[in-house]
Amino acid sequence: MFETAEIGHKLKKSEFVREEPKLRAALLDAQYQLLADRRFPVIILVNGVDGAGKGETVNLLNEWMDPRHIHTHAFGASIDAERARPEMWRFWQALPPKGKIGILFGSWYTDPILQRVMESEDAAEFDRRLARIRDHERMLVAEGALIMKLWFHLSKDAQTKRLKALSAKRKTAWRVTKEDWKRFKHYDEFVGVCELALRETSTGEAPWNIIEGSDHAYRSLTAGRLLLDSLTRRLKGSTQKISPVEPLPQQSLDKRDILNTVDYTHKLGHADYDNKLSKLQGKLSLLTRHKKMRDRSIVMLFEGMDAAGKGSTIRRITRAMDARFYHIVPVAAPTDEERAQPYLWRFWRHIPPHGHAVIFDRSWYGRVLVERVEKFCGENDWMRAYHEINEFEEQLVVGGAIVVKFWMAISQAEQLKRFRERAKTPHKQFKITDEDWRNRKRWPDYERAVADMIERTSSVLAPWHVIASNDKPWSRVETLKRLCETIEGAL
Amino acid sequence: MFETAEIGHKLKKSEFVREEPKLRAALLDAQYQLLADRRFPVIILVNGVDGAGKGETVNLLNEWMDPRHIHTHAFGASIDAERARPEMWRFWQALPPKGKIGILFGSWYTDPILQRVMESEDAAEFDRRLARIRDHERMLVAEGALIMKLWFHLSKDAQTKRLKALSAKRKTAWRVTKEDWKRFKHYDEFVGVCELALRETSTGEAPWNIIEGSDHAYRSLTAGRLLLDSLTRRLKGSTQKISPVEPLPQQSLDKRDILNTVDYTHKLGHADYDNKLSKLQGKLSLLTRHKKMRDRSIVMLFEGMDAAGKGSTIRRITRAMDARFYHIVPVAAPTDEERAQPYLWRFWRHIPPHGHAVIFDRSWYGRVLVERVEKFCGENDWMRAYHEINEFEEQLVVGGAIVVKFWMAISQAEQLKRFRERAKTPHKQFKITDEDWRNRKRWPDYERAVADMIERTSSVLAPWHVIASNDKPWSRVETLKRLCETIEGAL
Repeated sequence: MFETAEIGHKLKKSEFVREEPKLRAALLDAQYQLLADRRFPVIILVNGVDGAGKGETVNLLNEWMDPRHIHTHAFGASIDAERARPEMWRFWQALPPKGKIGILFGSWYTDPILQRVMESEDAAEFDRRLARIRDHERMLVAEGALIMKLWFHLSKDAQTKRLKALSAKRKTAWRVTKEDWKRFKHYDEFVGVCELALRETSTGEAPWNIIEGSDHAYRSLTAGRLLLDSLTRRLKGSTQKISPVEPLPQQSLDKRDILNTVDYTHKLGHADYDNKLSKLQGKLSLLTRHKKMRDRSIVMLFEGMDAAGKGSTIRRITRAMDARFYHIVPVAAPTDEERAQPYLWRFWRHIPPHGHAVIFDRSWYGRVLVERVEKFCGENDWMRAYHEINEFEEQLVVGGAIVVKFWMAISQAEQLKRFRERAKTPHKQFKITDEDWRNRKRWPDYERAVADMIERTSSVLAPWHVIASNDKPWSRVETLKRLCETIEGAL
Repeated sequence: MFETAEIGHKLKKSEFVREEPKLRAALLDAQYQLLADRRFPVIILVNGVDGAGKGETVNLLNEWMDPRHIHTHAFGASIDAERARPEMWRFWQALPPKGKIGILFGSWYTDPILQRVMESEDAAEFDRRLARIRDHERMLVAEGALIMKLWFHLSKDAQTKRLKALSAKRKTAWRVTKEDWKRFKHYDEFVGVCELALRETSTGEAPWNIIEGSDHAYRSLTAGRLLLDSLTRRLKGSTQKISPVEPLPQQSLDKRDILNTVDYTHKLGHADYDNKLSKLQGKLSLLTRHKKMRDRSIVMLFEGMDAAGKGSTIRRITRAMDARFYHIVPVAAPTDEERAQPYLWRFWRHIPPHGHAVIFDRSWYGRVLVERVEKFCGENDWMRAYHEINEFEEQLVVGGAIVVKFWMAISQAEQLKRFRERAKTPHKQFKITDEDWRNRKRWPDYERAVADMIERTSSVLAPWHVIASNDKPWSRVETLKRLCETIEGAL
């Protein structure tokens, strides 16, 4: 894989001098068009061997284009403080919005590669991390991002020469650290692991470009032209479409699904309710203050038809917790900063560090519920969302989060009763809008969407809890019970 | 000051039971109106003696109102990682947007008080920090925020009883930490320092409310009623107006100002330019990699009339720096998340940690330039901005930032020449718009605004560098020279 980048690629300086101004002008033009269109973000990943000119190339790209619209971020192996949130969190924070260019040094590749080479993390875990990366990049591409992956390579000999040359000069010696020499000792293992990483993550939608790094002119023009070429093609409109290969979900033949088979007969009397509720709240209160909670976080979400009782159930839960411990995110229309980012970005930004909880009142499942039913997004988008969501939740769990998902199920008749009550009660009228009545007409569509959602996203790591909620007391107690059980099980 | 909160305030439980539901309903109504109007944010500061019921009260407020629209944040003394940015940075990140309620535990009061009591920080520094707090709160109020400052008090006897009672019960023992007992030993000093803090920061626009904390019913109803009262009054429309007491800036009698006395005769030949530029870039490159830079940051900003050469000068600077070191912020129209926050919020979010630089291409000075001239904000707003900006920059400097401000000065004739060139050159036409021509007609107004700005915001901590920029080579070299000198002086 690296052979072609060890043959001593070189360009004459005169050729560089002749070509650079043209390339530069073209890149700048393309950048301004990107900025004017604001159709997609450009994500440039820069990785490779130490001393192969990664930094110089990035500085040159900043010099050639308008650096005001390029954000450069450097990432090393993740440090402890960053481990308080799922691994990918810091990369989500660094994504460029539509119209801008983000250059990520190291990015999501550095930590897996270093862990594998220097800490001998096992091969299976390495594979899992590569698979996660593949999914992540696929999602970014599907969300419209242009991803350019640049790998700067040097042969072992060339790297020795380069590190020595840099160390020798006072002006450049600072660029070679002890870490670099330490890593150099592992050159062969390092290259072996990298080859595997590149092979496994060079996909049709986001292939790696390997660039030999020893010659400045060759390296720079190659990187610049690659960027220009991809940018120009995307600006002309050729977008990569990822079509769903899977068949669309079908309704079950006997018309029975997880929702229409819910047992709505459960009921709980008043005294029983008060008693059980306060016991469970006490339990939850203790659990959230458990010593082990310092290294874990809780991510709860509530979905359900309108008037299913999400808000009032959330209040029964928060009453058991200290206000400093949790944070509630009512999911509303995205802001313009959120619209300039991939779909999941607006949820990632609220993922709490260890020792904290977040409660989503509606969630990322909007994509496969309201957005599917109301056709706010394309079939491609909601079809790929199931897998993206499973990936997302797996990342949360791997990062130490306890993920608890509730579907508050009510019958169509119960909803009608509650709508009418709301319309009658003065201080509840603001809670019922024309939209609620409109959504109600779509009940069968929503029911299908819910059934598909639960089938495709209820996993061992993050199962759905379908709570029969026609009887509010029973529903609240059951929710708290499941929540306590889940947290207890996880700690 | 605390005498009235040591007289053993008490309410009958029956009164609490009777009043609570009414208060709760009224608070919830007010909260929903706040949310619907989105006119202003509510900032509740919660401070006081340990064990005086701060946590319980906040939990109760979350229970009474809709917790989905309340964000609670706890702040202790600042930890080392947070010291990599100016002190107030973390509080800016926690401000609630318009329509929402933010509850800040401890907030900006905890660190100064603890440093004074426990670490014996000197009295003069304590005073300075209180003055900064006063300014900060005044700015928030002027930006429309409703600030409620609640101080929960306990007499020494009551605190002893309370801490002992909490420690005795298994269910509540976790709430009393070693730190609490350690602080309790300093009760008298602590109360003395707090009294001073409260006295100095109880202003007309943001007064302290002292609440005796020993009785649950009294404490809770008092806090709830205070909040309800302020909220209701603000929702009805009575806003606090802070009018400028100072006279408006006047033009100097001889019509001479900092801009029309700029010496535009400086010139630099081509060879001289190349030579000096590359020497200065080399110097800047070394300075940004200086060991001491790890505990400092750089905040640069560029202002100037259209076509003054801000962009091209910035590029000469960034070429000398590693792309991982700096970040450029081109200041454009605010996003909707930014519009829901005080004016300076959108600049605070970009303030870098130590070891990094940010370059603002236009800046917070927009408020006293374009917003003043085009009347995008009221006279009150731009008049108070001078002081707010001085405060802001002082906070940056105190927090370790090197602040460097450039005004790129060109003459009116030179601007005309550059506009015409741009209009003629195909790849520069996008840089010249109708707005540029329109702004040009306002030249005298802008010149007045600039003169006032420099007079009022050029300080020893953050002086303005007025750079004669009719000759681009001279201007770029001069800018780099001043920049290097400033950084060198600071390190």
